Amino acid sequence: MKCLSDAALDALYHERESAFLDDWMSFLRIPAVSADPAHEGDCRHCAEWLTAYLGQCGFQAECIETGYKPLVFAQRTGELSRPVVLLYGHYDVQPADPLPAWHTPPFEPVIREGRCYARGAQDNKGQLMYAFAALRTLIAQGVPLPTLKLVIEGEEENCSAGIAAVMRREPSRFAADLMLVHDTNMDPSGVPAITMGLRGIVQLTATLHGAGHDLHSGMHGGLAPNPVQGLASLLAGLHDADGRIAITDYYDAVRPPTAGELELAEALPFDAAAYRAATGCLPTGGLRDTGAAMRVGFLPSLDFNGIYGGYQGPGVKTIIPAKATAKLSARLVPDQDPETVLQSIEAHLYRHTPPGFRLEIEERGAAGPGFRLDPASPTVALARAVLGHDGAPVQLRWEGASIPIVASLAQVAGAEPLLVGFGLETDCIHSPNESFALDRFRQGFMYVCRLLQQVSSHAEKS
Amino acid sequence: MKCLSDAALDALYHERESAFLDDWMSFLRIPAVSADPAHEGDCRHCAEWLTAYLGQCGFQAECIETGYKPLVFAQRTGELSRPVVLLYGHYDVQPADPLPAWHTPPFEPVIREGRCYARGAQDNKGQLMYAFAALRTLIAQGVPLPTLKLVIEGEEENCSAGIAAVMRREPSRFAADLMLVHDTNMDPSGVPAITMGLRGIVQLTATLHGAGHDLHSGMHGGLAPNPVQGLASLLAGLHDADGRIAITDYYDAVRPPTAGELELAEALPFDAAAYRAATGCLPTGGLRDTGAAMRVGFLPSLDFNGIYGGYQGPGVKTIIPAKATAKLSARLVPDQDPETVLQSIEAHLYRHTPPGFRLEIEERGAAGPGFRLDPASPTVALARAVLGHDGAPVQLRWEGASIPIVASLAQVAGAEPLLVGFGLETDCIHSPNESFALDRFRQGFMYVCRLLQQVSSHAEKS
Repeated sequence: MKCLSDAALDALYHERESAFLDDWMSFLRIPAVSADPAHEGDCRHCAEWLTAYLGQCGFQAECIETGYKPLVFAQRTGELSRPVVLLYGHYDVQPADPLPAWHTPPFEPVIREGRCYARGAQDNKGQLMYAFAALRTLIAQGVPLPTLKLVIEGEEENCSAGIAAVMRREPSRFAADLMLVHDTNMDPSGVPAITMGLRGIVQLTATLHGAGHDLHSGMHGGLAPNPVQGLASLLAGLHDADGRIAITDYYDAVRPPTAGELELAEALPFDAAAYRAATGCLPTGGLRDTGAAMRVGFLPSLDFNGIYGGYQGPGVKTIIPAKATAKLSARLVPDQDPETVLQSIEAHLYRHTPPGFRLEIEERGAAGPGFRLDPASPTVALARAVLGHDGAPVQLRWEGASIPIVASLAQVAGAEPLLVGFGLETDCIHSPNESFALDRFRQGFMYVCRLLQQVSSHAEKS
Repeated sequence: MKCLSDAALDALYHERESAFLDDWMSFLRIPAVSADPAHEGDCRHCAEWLTAYLGQCGFQAECIETGYKPLVFAQRTGELSRPVVLLYGHYDVQPADPLPAWHTPPFEPVIREGRCYARGAQDNKGQLMYAFAALRTLIAQGVPLPTLKLVIEGEEENCSAGIAAVMRREPSRFAADLMLVHDTNMDPSGVPAITMGLRGIVQLTATLHGAGHDLHSGMHGGLAPNPVQGLASLLAGLHDADGRIAITDYYDAVRPPTAGELELAEALPFDAAAYRAATGCLPTGGLRDTGAAMRVGFLPSLDFNGIYGGYQGPGVKTIIPAKATAKLSARLVPDQDPETVLQSIEAHLYRHTPPGFRLEIEERGAAGPGFRLDPASPTVALARAVLGHDGAPVQLRWEGASIPIVASLAQVAGAEPLLVGFGLETDCIHSPNESFALDRFRQGFMYVCRLLQQVSSHAEKS
């Protein structure tokens, strides 16, 4: 059975690198911001571009209508004796604001000093494109491959409603044995990592209404209720003085880590000074007197993603605003049920709305639960072998991020998810000047090639 | 001595009304938003327009450079045996946002159903223009008048820095016996009112900084400090559960009302249902279990005029914002010292900044103290006589609003301030669709004519 050596793969990569980068740049130029209705057409254009591109790579690709953003689905039948591999990713990106903070425009990708800068450069278009480049190369070289299914959604950053609809409608379409996700990070030191867990996410937008219009703060100060004051009080009450989420029963369903998981997670280096150097702040968030690995990997969090109300311009405008709004999202761990958690947040907000205000909740979404992999699973063993093929160290990481649909897609597919990514914190995903380094793009390419050859040649269909 | 009867004044008003309205519209078309540096040129243009206009009315008018916005000063020497009258007002206006809420553009005045709609239609351009129309008419008719000084500043809505500079530089310029201010309201029922007190005002903008850039709320939720959470906690702590301002010693300097003042103030009708009908909210702000008259007329207040941080667009953006900002202003009563109060707010904010954040305070301003008139003063008696000339009722009101410079200008001028205005809550000053009714414009004209004739014919120079 044909199997390409590392040297052969390396040569193929260099021969094709400029074509790979061209495709990546074309993908990045399409501003598929799923959260913003103004980019509706761009999201569709991006899905259509991707469908055509995957067709050229050797897949039967289709753009599935979902009632939300289109879902790109591509398939290639391979060795029937081998595990079916499903690759999940997303073509949508985060909003690019604040625009003035970008050194170059977010949707005009540029390569500077070995990095590609653009919104989505890493998350997720960059990490998808090295995988597609690997698949395209293996197919072109006639390497035997397992049956491959590519599922690329357009709403990962915004509730995954479209893919969820197709999962309900046609669950069998997703049936697979192994599910690959390339949307995570390495260790900051550059050691490759397997992400052993992700948190789930729910979100809502809460608006506190006071007067029917902005009031003069002199004539009404001390009379009219101030929604900014009410909202501040409501938000402040969501955590206690120890940083614990102050919602009744919030931690009841939380699955604690096993002793083994916690030991592995806490063995990873965490340096507060390095954290400060990378982020500009010390890790003072979350539960007081609790280790960083525990806080981010095994505990839920509740964050305010935005707040607004009243006057935001220069100088003074002496009003009592008519309303104030906060955007909230909460990260969940296994076995917290997203809808239950969302309802408990809503109930808390309604119960604690100060007198004189009307609470309105919009944009509620329970995108997905958290999950954790068993460190003893054969999938983990396979990935460790591929990543550590040359004796290099491999890390197991419990991350705080979410890929909302991963846990439920894995369940529908009947596949174990394997999350390996080559991101770093310095890529600034979700922030201005997002980027991805070309050497890590190449690393990702090599990993996907090696993994699929390994699956084809060694792994037995279970 | 020539003295025009009510019938004569009424005839003159109707004869000249369309010319009065034309001048008023021209004044309103100039968007003199003092808070916004983008309107710097408009403010200057407005001052120059006003200077030319007052010249045409019969005054020696000049546009004084202040180092801030120009100050318009106009004078006409009159009967030397009579009290010198200083009229104070402002040509600047509040910002017009939110623009989409306006039914017609804020700086394109229109008259609809007996009301003029524009930013500044009432506050203060409308209430100035009826006074100017009155003065112009009396001068043109050869009515004997006292010496008149008109002082129209361009920063009433933004700290009054320019007029304050001229007051320090040339205090004698402002010397007067009686100071007229037309920037207040009548009773909602339409009963004319004398404003017996105003509150002072101080303000600042507070920003809480966390990380150096927006962070991914999954990877950092529970690790990084969230500035929206920190700011919510900081703002929530500024009031206690009873609505009392929770800053140490904050109420120490507050001058309580006399028994007579409180009795007069509480005798005014205050109806919570009517308040709700006018504003859309019940009067649940301020100190719990304390009457509305006391809360708005004799107690300080502390309000949040705006708040912002992180994502404000549609949908979800899962970030921990790098910073969050609140705009605060506080209303003061006699004898609170503005600078002392401002410092106590700042000290409280610094002392209670949660760990992990850096507090930055900008745009701090201590615009002016509060003041109260003695109900037994001869000035109050004069105004009561003029307003109640036909036996109609007259109200004494203790208002919560501020005209920051009034107390200190009265002190520099050596004059007692007399605040009579024809505004109503339904004029929506500081809000979209500000307006002023033509019949109240006429009422203001009649009042100013009568008052000045009264001063010329009866009042003795003290």
